[in-house]
Amino acid sequence: MAIVTLLTDFGTADGYVAEMKGVLLTGAPTAQVVDVAHDVPAQDVEFARLAFARYWRRFPADTVHLVVVDPAVGTSRTALAIESDGRFAVGPDNGVLSPAMLLPGARAVALAIPLDASPTFHGRDVFAPAAVRLLRGEPLDALGSPFSDAILRRTPEAQRSADGGQDGRVLSVDRFGNLITNLTGRGGVTVELGGQLLRLSRSYADVTEGELVALVGSHGLIEVAVRGGNASRTLGVGRGESVTLRRESGTA
Amino acid sequence: MAIVTLLTDFGTADGYVAEMKGVLLTGAPTAQVVDVAHDVPAQDVEFARLAFARYWRRFPADTVHLVVVDPAVGTSRTALAIESDGRFAVGPDNGVLSPAMLLPGARAVALAIPLDASPTFHGRDVFAPAAVRLLRGEPLDALGSPFSDAILRRTPEAQRSADGGQDGRVLSVDRFGNLITNLTGRGGVTVELGGQLLRLSRSYADVTEGELVALVGSHGLIEVAVRGGNASRTLGVGRGESVTLRRESGTA
Amino acid sequence: MAIVTLLTDFGTADGYVAEMKGVLLTGAPTAQVVDVAHDVPAQDVEFARLAFARYWRRFPADTVHLVVVDPAVGTSRTALAIESDGRFAVGPDNGVLSPAMLLPGARAVALAIPLDASPTFHGRDVFAPAAVRLLRGEPLDALGSPFSDAILRRTPEAQRSADGGQDGRVLSVDRFGNLITNLTGRGGVTVELGGQLLRLSRSYADVTEGELVALVGSHGLIEVAVRGGNASRTLGVGRGESVTLRRESGTA
Repeated sequence: MAIVTLLTDFGTADGYVAEMKGVLLTGAPTAQVVDVAHDVPAQDVEFARLAFARYWRRFPADTVHLVVVDPAVGTSRTALAIESDGRFAVGPDNGVLSPAMLLPGARAVALAIPLDASPTFHGRDVFAPAAVRLLRGEPLDALGSPFSDAILRRTPEAQRSADGGQDGRVLSVDRFGNLITNLTGRGGVTVELGGQLLRLSRSYADVTEGELVALVGSHGLIEVAVRGGNASRTLGVGRGESVTLRRESGTA
Repeated sequence: MAIVTLLTDFGTADGYVAEMKGVLLTGAPTAQVVDVAHDVPAQDVEFARLAFARYWRRFPADTVHLVVVDPAVGTSRTALAIESDGRFAVGPDNGVLSPAMLLPGARAVALAIPLDASPTFHGRDVFAPAAVRLLRGEPLDALGSPFSDAILRRTPEAQRSADGGQDGRVLSVDRFGNLITNLTGRGGVTVELGGQLLRLSRSYADVTEGELVALVGSHGLIEVAVRGGNASRTLGVGRGESVTLRRESGTA
Repeated sequence: MAIVTLLTDFGTADGYVAEMKGVLLTGAPTAQVVDVAHDVPAQDVEFARLAFARYWRRFPADTVHLVVVDPAVGTSRTALAIESDGRFAVGPDNGVLSPAMLLPGARAVALAIPLDASPTFHGRDVFAPAAVRLLRGEPLDALGSPFSDAILRRTPEAQRSADGGQDGRVLSVDRFGNLITNLTGRGGVTVELGGQLLRLSRSYADVTEGELVALVGSHGLIEVAVRGGNASRTLGVGRGESVTLRRESGTA
């Protein structure tokens, strides 16, 4: 059974996402339509990119991922369909699909924009129809001409210092107020964020309720959290904040 | 595969929508349940009607649309099932289903209210069971007696003036802050809203980031937006605001 | 067709729920994934328990319910899979699954935690994989060792007084501001809440727009609502508030 996922910043109440679902199910009536999210902050391409990076390879081969966070809809930006690691993705050329594009072997094609496509709603008139063709088994190359200039966004890497430390920043704040950083590491390090020095712990169990904790999150990056609480509120810290990792020998 | 869509104002967290989904899948285990939205403003029938108008015909034939925004549940208001243009819709008789009812050939039946139906939750006890019968292929007429007095709500039309202009209003504000009006037109016109005079553009590409723009939206109605921004906040304007269209020859 | 439902407090925007959906569909590609809700208040086990109580038995036999509201993830709390009344449920041992566990005949097993499971994301690495095994038809006992010490939470019962009255409280406030209490009763009683005395009505039809009404809600518990309004805001009352039921003969 074909699977198509949807990530947008449209919200659901206005019915725009439902229009896209209607197009998908009219063209591929046996596909399963799977919601990722529609409450991405409006026009926040970077937020959507980080979410997409988390889930796209978790789905089975041949899944079609629709990602429509598209502030430049109606301009000359390219509309893309890509194939990477056996999955497909369709969306605007603004970097949101980079996690899939950056994998070796990824290929992209530029979609034609039909003359009667609404200049404000390519999700319905360009991207969903392209997803339908992929759901029906058409090969990527049938959808458009090869495109090698896709905009690529990378997660900014932490700077490594001579003493084995790292200078990084907070990439995102999740619904729990967990601060996800671009630091990586295992044991024997200390994280400094918002004036707090925290030894890297293994799990929430290492601290008591209400206490700050730094640990390796579910995507391999170091996170700062409050057990049973909200670290972003506790520290008054958000996306972009500086964060430092030090090897323990260096912190006394 | 049968498809049923759900539009409610129940929110999801309380589990009411899940109860409805359970009823649907118990009665029609192979149907695909498709969420439209559950975050319609509470009891806002007009908001739901505008959303329903957008998506209902985008779905394939035989789709069953459940729409439960029902401030008068438990009163003597009629419960409806309708058939229109090959699709079905089930919901309260308060005008929310008008976009389907107003199409030539539409038919409605009044559903019986089972004696043991909760007087506060017809979504679960009246509408979902009716949807199940339609999903199983029962004809509309098997569900109730013909009903010809359905409440009809129409999108208010703009008033046309002698000089070719229009006096209209803002019908809705979407998640992006776009102001969707009831004005219609193509080129050569100017839109006046919130003290701003805007020439009708073709797409966002015609203005720069942060600039106001008037264009024909994805449903054929003129919208006022801010590229990369929020027109409702920028103009301090919401639903119901007056808006005027003038032919360009008349504006100098 | 196998059905799996998801209730979490993860929100959707961060992509965590999508990761779980990817795991589910990779392991059980023909299962239908049904969203219950992801906007449960963060780490509010009691809120999730009340929602779960409403929907779990509405779904058909063999449905697998995933419930991940799990403030103690990464501690020594047990991970559970249970079978009750022909349905399955998977989630943390914190009482959230009690509505199913409390039914006679319910059985639970303790899931092993794989060594490579993220200590912050058992939803993806422990619970979703267990759900996959159930969706594929593996028996409960294959998933872990029998566990008889599951934490059980019960809805607090109202205290019955000698004169046939009840002292209870507000269990929850739904999206409409309806105040759901733990009082039970039919006719001939009066409800006192937030300084208001209300005769128990049968439906919203018994009062006019904007008026307070007490009635038996869709789960058999007495609710206080405002027709077309929000009782929680009108009364300034929330979860935990005291509420009293009196037999009418006792109120004069």
